Amino acid sequence: MPKRYLVLAEGRSGDPHYGKTARGVVRYAPEKVVAVLDSERPGERYEGFPIVGSVEEAMPLGPTTALVGVATSGGRFPPAWRELLKSCIAAGLDIENGLHQRVSEDPELVELASRSGAELVDLRKPPDDLNVPTGANLEVSARIVLTVGSDCAIGKMTVSLELDREARARGIASVFVPTGQTGIAIAGWGIAVDAVIADFIAGAAERLVLEGVERGGELLWIEGQGSLTHPQYSGVTLGLYHGCAPHALVLCHAAGQEYVNDDPRFPMPALRELVELHEQMALIARRAPVAAIALNTRALDEEAARRAVAEAGEETGLVADDPVRFGAARIVDAVLTQIGHDSA
Amino acid sequence: MPKRYLVLAEGRSGDPHYGKTARGVVRYAPEKVVAVLDSERPGERYEGFPIVGSVEEAMPLGPTTALVGVATSGGRFPPAWRELLKSCIAAGLDIENGLHQRVSEDPELVELASRSGAELVDLRKPPDDLNVPTGANLEVSARIVLTVGSDCAIGKMTVSLELDREARARGIASVFVPTGQTGIAIAGWGIAVDAVIADFIAGAAERLVLEGVERGGELLWIEGQGSLTHPQYSGVTLGLYHGCAPHALVLCHAAGQEYVNDDPRFPMPALRELVELHEQMALIARRAPVAAIALNTRALDEEAARRAVAEAGEETGLVADDPVRFGAARIVDAVLTQIGHDSA
Repeated sequence: MPKRYLVLAEGRSGDPHYGKTARGVVRYAPEKVVAVLDSERPGERYEGFPIVGSVEEAMPLGPTTALVGVATSGGRFPPAWRELLKSCIAAGLDIENGLHQRVSEDPELVELASRSGAELVDLRKPPDDLNVPTGANLEVSARIVLTVGSDCAIGKMTVSLELDREARARGIASVFVPTGQTGIAIAGWGIAVDAVIADFIAGAAERLVLEGVERGGELLWIEGQGSLTHPQYSGVTLGLYHGCAPHALVLCHAAGQEYVNDDPRFPMPALRELVELHEQMALIARRAPVAAIALNTRALDEEAARRAVAEAGEETGLVADDPVRFGAARIVDAVLTQIGHDSA
Repeated sequence: MPKRYLVLAEGRSGDPHYGKTARGVVRYAPEKVVAVLDSERPGERYEGFPIVGSVEEAMPLGPTTALVGVATSGGRFPPAWRELLKSCIAAGLDIENGLHQRVSEDPELVELASRSGAELVDLRKPPDDLNVPTGANLEVSARIVLTVGSDCAIGKMTVSLELDREARARGIASVFVPTGQTGIAIAGWGIAVDAVIADFIAGAAERLVLEGVERGGELLWIEGQGSLTHPQYSGVTLGLYHGCAPHALVLCHAAGQEYVNDDPRFPMPALRELVELHEQMALIARRAPVAAIALNTRALDEEAARRAVAEAGEETGLVADDPVRFGAARIVDAVLTQIGHDSA
């Protein structure tokens, strides 16, 4: 039976940050979704899908799997969620969970699942044979493009997905390479690089590059994680950067954002400085220029968005655009030119 | 009974890189060591301690604990080591192990230990309640100094230990903060930040800072890990850097080294560039100047060493010295001046 998600977004279906798994799957793998659960908004709609208030209400729609659609800081379950997970398992739904806290190692949930026949899958659980990178990342023939960003949760995954979609529409053997739980739920493969042993971040990234090539990718769009400038997640960001050995970067930035991590102690650097910082931090063996700026203009009206895009281009001397709002063509053009792709 | 180490350096007692745990403990916690084991060099001496060829030979010297004194790339056990560990356990010795591969989760070793009463301790096993940093790292009153470096295994831990020793000799409430297995074996506390879940590197570093303060530290010397320029471990390095929120850095460098990780694809950047790179990568909320260069001149004769130190100083405009060879005083002076310490 093909997988059909009930997306659990309890209390968070209206939250752009903590509901990002729900939003990503609904937008980029809608064929897998039947409904979204949020008891605070039953009867409303979420990106075209019905919002149900309970598991019982969802069952007639035919879900096979309940997907934990929220992300929490630190990756723990809000206590109230346990009851929700238990009712999903009792109803016979499999669980897919992207938080650090594992459902497959929770005795109470495992016991419940053994009775209902449900499968408990932790999307963030890494392979157990990871190691440091071997250097094979520098030897594949595919071209590798990483999204980086000035903060968390500003759309690096979305940008990678949009650029991949545009490249595939042009007939390029392009593959989106998932590095986090939402990307894994969307694409059905990948490693959550933030959940591996710290020493093996770069090794996990290298393995993803090799798997992207095995999946037929000649152009790989690596989903970025965190930010070099983020006080909590920068280690993952740099390990991913060096381990995937990109030929070019796309720098994602939310227009007008004043602080990193919403913290006034962390004023946002200028775009030009961010470009320079990312280029200087490249793997010594493979310099990675920023090929374009992907500007998130969600908070702006149309006119202000166009102005912000123009300003970002002027400040950096690079192609800048909002690929979600205005289409991915210009950024894909800039990337293909940068990496010397035939179709450019 | 106080802990007394038999340091296992089988086949590696002459190896400066892979024997670095053995070397560190023997040098900086000699009061805990009774002998070193290497069946390839029985009867020789290692930094003043006897080298024994077997566990049996060591037992009359009164060890309580066998310390795994080698580090391997990726942290796995060479197969031949299993037999050695088994003979230690059979002889009633506790095991302390700093490799990623866990002795405390190895069914065969656990079974053997349950019979002999030996304790199996994994120095790299992280606390299981880690999370992302809270921001408390920016609120402690202690001054924080991190060693960073241009490569792995060039002496960051040694430099931190030497600077701490010099500061304590001056009556400063100084604490060495261990972030790796060797430092933990030496100091008897700490977290191996390369073994935590990738998302929690910075959180682990923050916790170590708080513990250093609890232990009475007004000046904390954080043991650095890896290198921002290393293709395998840079993620750990940056997470540690941002999580410990240092007020100043001491940049460690091996004089004359041409490549990072002995890999010709990774030419070593100039010292001046390394200083700039590390200062640019500081946490936005707390800029961390490089206060001094700690030059490892092990490979040079006395005259060449003095010349290399002078050149490093001229190139960077900073105090440069080899604290192991020529004493730690000048670097401690430079650090105290940089951080505005009263005793400067």
